[in-house]
Amino acid sequence: MASDPTSAPARPSFALLLAAGLGTRMRSPLAKVLHPALGRPLVAWAVDAARAAALVPVVVVNHQEDAVRAALADRGCRFARQEAPRGTGDAVASGLQAIDEDGVVVVLCGDGPLIRAETLRALCAAHAAGGRPVTVLTMHLEAPGAYGRIVRDESGRVLRIVEAGEARPEELALTEVNTGIYALDIVWLRARLPQLQPHPPKGELYLTDVVELAAAEGGAQGVVLADAREAMGVNDRAQLAEAEGILQERVLRRWMEAGVGIEAPASVTVEAAVELDPDAAIERGAVLRGRTRVGAGARVGAYSVLVDAELEPGAQVLPHCALESCTVASGASVGPFARLRPEARVEEGAKVGNFVEIKKARIAPGAKVPHLSYVGDATVGAGANIGAGTITCNYDGVFKHHTEIGPGAFIGSNSALVAPVRVGAGALVGAGSVITKDVPDEAVALTRAKQEHWPEAARRLRERKLAEKARRGTRS
Amino acid sequence: MASDPTSAPARPSFALLLAAGLGTRMRSPLAKVLHPALGRPLVAWAVDAARAAALVPVVVVNHQEDAVRAALADRGCRFARQEAPRGTGDAVASGLQAIDEDGVVVVLCGDGPLIRAETLRALCAAHAAGGRPVTVLTMHLEAPGAYGRIVRDESGRVLRIVEAGEARPEELALTEVNTGIYALDIVWLRARLPQLQPHPPKGELYLTDVVELAAAEGGAQGVVLADAREAMGVNDRAQLAEAEGILQERVLRRWMEAGVGIEAPASVTVEAAVELDPDAAIERGAVLRGRTRVGAGARVGAYSVLVDAELEPGAQVLPHCALESCTVASGASVGPFARLRPEARVEEGAKVGNFVEIKKARIAPGAKVPHLSYVGDATVGAGANIGAGTITCNYDGVFKHHTEIGPGAFIGSNSALVAPVRVGAGALVGAGSVITKDVPDEAVALTRAKQEHWPEAARRLRERKLAEKARRGTRS
Amino acid sequence: MASDPTSAPARPSFALLLAAGLGTRMRSPLAKVLHPALGRPLVAWAVDAARAAALVPVVVVNHQEDAVRAALADRGCRFARQEAPRGTGDAVASGLQAIDEDGVVVVLCGDGPLIRAETLRALCAAHAAGGRPVTVLTMHLEAPGAYGRIVRDESGRVLRIVEAGEARPEELALTEVNTGIYALDIVWLRARLPQLQPHPPKGELYLTDVVELAAAEGGAQGVVLADAREAMGVNDRAQLAEAEGILQERVLRRWMEAGVGIEAPASVTVEAAVELDPDAAIERGAVLRGRTRVGAGARVGAYSVLVDAELEPGAQVLPHCALESCTVASGASVGPFARLRPEARVEEGAKVGNFVEIKKARIAPGAKVPHLSYVGDATVGAGANIGAGTITCNYDGVFKHHTEIGPGAFIGSNSALVAPVRVGAGALVGAGSVITKDVPDEAVALTRAKQEHWPEAARRLRERKLAEKARRGTRS
Repeated sequence: MASDPTSAPARPSFALLLAAGLGTRMRSPLAKVLHPALGRPLVAWAVDAARAAALVPVVVVNHQEDAVRAALADRGCRFARQEAPRGTGDAVASGLQAIDEDGVVVVLCGDGPLIRAETLRALCAAHAAGGRPVTVLTMHLEAPGAYGRIVRDESGRVLRIVEAGEARPEELALTEVNTGIYALDIVWLRARLPQLQPHPPKGELYLTDVVELAAAEGGAQGVVLADAREAMGVNDRAQLAEAEGILQERVLRRWMEAGVGIEAPASVTVEAAVELDPDAAIERGAVLRGRTRVGAGARVGAYSVLVDAELEPGAQVLPHCALESCTVASGASVGPFARLRPEARVEEGAKVGNFVEIKKARIAPGAKVPHLSYVGDATVGAGANIGAGTITCNYDGVFKHHTEIGPGAFIGSNSALVAPVRVGAGALVGAGSVITKDVPDEAVALTRAKQEHWPEAARRLRERKLAEKARRGTRS
Repeated sequence: MASDPTSAPARPSFALLLAAGLGTRMRSPLAKVLHPALGRPLVAWAVDAARAAALVPVVVVNHQEDAVRAALADRGCRFARQEAPRGTGDAVASGLQAIDEDGVVVVLCGDGPLIRAETLRALCAAHAAGGRPVTVLTMHLEAPGAYGRIVRDESGRVLRIVEAGEARPEELALTEVNTGIYALDIVWLRARLPQLQPHPPKGELYLTDVVELAAAEGGAQGVVLADAREAMGVNDRAQLAEAEGILQERVLRRWMEAGVGIEAPASVTVEAAVELDPDAAIERGAVLRGRTRVGAGARVGAYSVLVDAELEPGAQVLPHCALESCTVASGASVGPFARLRPEARVEEGAKVGNFVEIKKARIAPGAKVPHLSYVGDATVGAGANIGAGTITCNYDGVFKHHTEIGPGAFIGSNSALVAPVRVGAGALVGAGSVITKDVPDEAVALTRAKQEHWPEAARRLRERKLAEKARRGTRS
Repeated sequence: MASDPTSAPARPSFALLLAAGLGTRMRSPLAKVLHPALGRPLVAWAVDAARAAALVPVVVVNHQEDAVRAALADRGCRFARQEAPRGTGDAVASGLQAIDEDGVVVVLCGDGPLIRAETLRALCAAHAAGGRPVTVLTMHLEAPGAYGRIVRDESGRVLRIVEAGEARPEELALTEVNTGIYALDIVWLRARLPQLQPHPPKGELYLTDVVELAAAEGGAQGVVLADAREAMGVNDRAQLAEAEGILQERVLRRWMEAGVGIEAPASVTVEAAVELDPDAAIERGAVLRGRTRVGAGARVGAYSVLVDAELEPGAQVLPHCALESCTVASGASVGPFARLRPEARVEEGAKVGNFVEIKKARIAPGAKVPHLSYVGDATVGAGANIGAGTITCNYDGVFKHHTEIGPGAFIGSNSALVAPVRVGAGALVGAGSVITKDVPDEAVALTRAKQEHWPEAARRLRERKLAEKARRGTRS
C-alpha cells in the first residue's frame, strides 16, 4: 500500500474517483461502489491502487455519501459531492473542487476494482514524458460494443473519443476504445471544463470531449492498456462475480509465490485483508475472511470457514470448522466440525474435537474438549479433560455466568456445570452430573440416583406396544 | 416455459424427440435420457426448450418407457414407441405415428439438453422462410470427428449428409457437420420415409438420407448454429458433467443479471427449479436443490445444502447447514452446522444454532435452540429458550409422540423431555432433568439427585490407576 | 503400473530421474520432489510413468535422501547420490553409477509429474527407430522464456541446445525448446560425459551439451511433444497447484469414462490411489483421499471428506461427513454431519445420523445411532436403537474400556454408559440414565431422581432476576 518514493511523479498527483452513482443494475439497496469484492468495497480497490501509485485519492460521491465516506475512512481520501448526475464532465468538475493544488489528476472509475498500481504509475510516467495535457488510457477489444471509440490521426495522435451511440459506421468499426481512465493536467483541465457542451438527450457533460479540446491544441495522447481486464467495470452481479474472481486469482497467486500451499486454488476464498505465512497450508474449499491470519506450518482443513481468526504457527484446523475472532495456538488442534466463537482461545497443545462449540473461553495448554460440548464463558485449566456431552450452563435466562474448571480436572460425560461454579484442580465429576456447587480440588463430585433394574420389563413393554401397534394397524 | 403466441409459427408444429436408447457408455442401470442435469432429466431439458418454442413435444421411447413417461408427466408430451433400434429414420417414422396433423416437425435428440428455445424458433422461422421441405441445423467444428459431414453444392444448397464412416477423404475434410436437428414438413416427410434404404452392417435407416431425397427435388437447406455447444449430445459421464456445467452457467448468469448475489459462481449448485429473489445472497459452495426458494435479503451461507427449502425474505442460513423441506422465516437465523428436516419451521426472529437438529417442529417467533439439541415432533413456544443438550425423546421404540414447550419456557441444559409431555408457559426445567410429567405454567421442575463430594477421592483414584498403568507397562 | 511386454524396447531401458534438489522457491522445509500432488509425491508420478513405460527407475538424490527413498519404497527404484549440485551433466553421471547395463536411458525431471507413459514409450520408439545416440524431447512455446532453445540445421537435425542466458538474439527468437527429457544410449553417454566442459559462473556441467557432441558425430534428433503441459516442471506452489489440477482432470476423466457419476468435477478431489466403481456417485465438493474405495451405487454426499474409507456397493454417505479408515456397508446410511473415525464399521442397513461420532466401534446390521452421540470402543447390536445424546464413557482418564450394547436394546436419550459395561439384548435404558452396572437382557434400567415441581417458582425467579437486571442497568 505504501508508495514508492522513487517512482513518485515530480508534481503532486491526484486520483479522482467517480463514485457517485447508485448502480441500478445491481438491483440492490446498497450503492454499487460499496458492494464488497473479497471483503473490500469496490471503490476501496481503486482507492488502494491509486494510493499505491502515490496518488492522493479524491472521491466524488452522491448516493449513500456517508456510507462511502465511512467505507474509506483511514485511507487518506478527500471527498467531493456531485449534486446531480450530469455526466462525467460534471463529476470531474465536482471533484476538482476538492483540489486546490495544480499538478496531474488521474480519473478513475469507482466501480473498476481491477486497475493495478503499476498501470497507474506507467500512465503517469507516459503522461509526464508526453508533455501533453491529456493522456487517455485505451484498450483493444474484439467486440468493442458500447465503449467509446478512440479516433486517431494517421500519425497516431488521438483526435477524439466518440461515444458508440454517436459514432459513424467507420468509427464503430474501430476496436481501440476508451477505458474511462485518463491522466490530465489540472490547470489545463480546470480551464477547459467550462467549455464542455451538454449532449442530448439528457444534457450530460462528457469528460471524453476534453480529448478533442486537447487535440485541437495538438495535445492528446493515448496509451494502450495491455490487459483489457484491468479496465473492467462492474455493472451487475455477474460482473461483480467475474471481477472478484480475477482479484482472487491475483491474491492467491501472490500467496502461492510466497510459499503458501493452496489446494485447488479455484476452490478457496482468501479475502484481501487476510495474512498468510510461508508454508501455511490451505485445503480445498477453505474460506478465509476478514483479518484472518495463518502462521507457518498451520493448516486450514477443507471447507473450514474462518473470520478474523488467528492460527499461530503449527496450529491445526481440521475440515468443516467455523471460527470467528478466536485464536488457535501452536500445536493445538481443532475440529472437524468445531465452532469457535469470539474470544475463544485454544492454547498450546490443547484439543477441541467434533461437535464442540467454544465461546469466550480459554482452553489452557493440553486441555481437551473432544466431543459434543458447549464451553462458554469459561476457563478450562491446563490438562483438564472434558467428557463428551458436557455443557457449561452459562445463561440463567437473564444473566451470563462464568465456569472455572481447574487444571487436571476430569469432567464425566453428559455433565452440566451450572455457572457460576468452580470445579477444582484435579477434581473428578462423575458422568451425568449437574454441578451447582463448587467442587474442591481433588474431590470426586457426583449427582446420581441409584441404578435400578426391572427384570423382563423391557420385553413386556415392547410386547405391549407392538400389540397396540398391531391393533391400530388392524383398525385403520 | 410458456410459449410466446406472437412467435408461434403459422402451421401447427411439433418437436420429435429421440429418447429410445439406453446409453451403454453411461454404464448405468438408468436410461441415459433420465440422468439428471441440475435436477432435471436430460430429456426434459430438450422437451422444455421445445415447449418454450411453441412446439408440441412428441417423445420416441423404448428403454424404460414407463420411467420416461413419468419423468415427463405434466409437460404436455405425446409419446410413441420405437419397437427396435433400427436407426434414426425408423425412430422418426415411429414418432410420426403420434402425429395426425400436418405442419412442421423439428427432430431433436433426447440426450441434447443444451439446445435453446431461441435456436428452435430461429430454425422454424428459417424453415418457413426457405419454403423447402427440409432444413438441417448444421455447425462448424474444427475437429469434426465422427459427425456426419454436410455436403453443399457451389451455390450453397445442401446436397446430402455423409456419415463419417462412409465418407470419401475430401468429404471427411469438411468441417460443417450435422447437429442431428432438423425442421421437416410432415406431409413431405411421411411420403419420403418409406423410400429410405437400410445401411449395412446393421440395416439401419438413416434420417440423414432424407436430405438427399429433398435435394433431388431441389429442396434442402442448411442453417448454421452459432454456438456448437448447443448441439452437444451426452454419451458418457464426462459429457454429462460438461453439459451440466454449461446449463449451470446459464442458470447462474440469469440469476445474477436479475440481481442475485452469488459468491464464486463456479462453486455453487443452483438446480433448475430453484427460485431466487433479487438481492438474495448465495455464498461460496452453497448447494440449492429441488424447489428451494430464497427471498430478497436472505442469505445462504457457505457450503449449506438446501433441498426444497424455503427462506423467506431476510432469513439467514449460516455456513454448513443442511435443510430439507422446511421454512426459515424473516429475521430468523439458522446455523452454522444446523440440520432442518422436513416440516421444520423456524419462525420470525427465532434462532437455531450449531449442532441442532429440528424435525417436524415449529420454533415459534423469538424462540431459541442455540446448541446441541434435537427437537422433533414438537412445538417450541414464542420466546422459549432451549438449553444446550436438550433432547425431545419423541420415540419410544414403537411410537412417535409430541412435545409441547410453552411460550417463554426455559429448558435447562442436558434435559430430556420424554414425550408425550408438555412444559407450560414460562416454566423452568432445571439442567439435567428428565421430564416425564407435564410441567405447569410458571412452575420450576427438576429431577436431580443431591450433589455429593468425596474429598481427595479424585487424587486417590488417579494415583491408583496410574500405578496400575505403570504396572501394566512394566509387565508388557 | 505393470509394463506391457509387447511394447518393451528390445534392449534394457532405464529412466534416470533428477531428484536431488531442495527447491527453494517452494519455501518449504520439505524437499520439492516430496511435495504431494493428489496424495502422491511429485517424484513418484514421474517414477510411475517410467515404470508404466517399462523403464527401470534410477533416482538421483541428495536433499532429504532418506525421505525420498522411503517415499519411493516398493516402486522398484535404484538410487544414486549426487554429492553436490554441479549441474545436470553431473547428476546424470552420478545416476549412471547405479547402472551397470548398457541400453537406453531416459532422463526425466523429478519435479515433472505430468509426463505420461505413452509419451515415454513414443520417445523410446523414436529413439530406437532413429538409430542415433541422442534423442531430445522438444516442445513449442509461444513465450519460450528461460528455456533452452533447440537449434536445428536446415535439414531439421538438432545441432545443439542453447541455454537462454547464453543465446544470441536470433537463437532467443526460436520457439522450439528443450523439455529436459532425453533418450540416450548408455554406452555412448558414458564415454561422452567426461568431455563436458564446466559453464561459468558456477562451473556446472550441462547435460544439454551432449546434444552438440552427438551432432558433431551426425547423431542428434529431436522429437516434438504434442502437449507442452506434459513437460511442465514444478518450481513453486502456484505451479504445484497447476500441475495437481491437470493431474486431477486426468484422473476424473478416467473415472467418468468408466461410468462414475461426478457432480461438478472441478469441485472434487479424488486422490491418485482412490478406487471407484462404475455407477458410484460423487457429489459436489466431495474429497476422497488415500486408499478410499467407493462401490457401485454408493454415494458420497456434498462436501464429505473421506480418508482411507471404504463404501461398499450401495452405501450412502450424506453431505458434510468426515470418514477415516472405516467401513460403511451396503444399505447403510451415514450423515449428514457424521464423523467415522478409524475402525468404525457401520454394517448393512445400519444408520448413523447427524452430529454423531463413531470410533473403533461396530454398528451391527439395522442398528441406529441417529443423533448427537459418541460411540467409541463399543459394539452396538443388531437392530439396537441409540437415543440422541447417548455417550459411551470409554475413558476414565487413564484407561479406555469397552461398551457392549446387545441386539435390540433401546438406549434412552441423554444416557451415559460408563464402560466397561454391558447392556443386554432387548434391554431398555431410561432417558437420562448413567449406567455403571451391567443391565440384564430384557430388563429396564434407570437412574433417575423423582420429578419435583415448585408452582409459580419460575415466575418469581424470573421477576427477581429481571428486577436485578433493571437495577444494574440503572446503576451503570
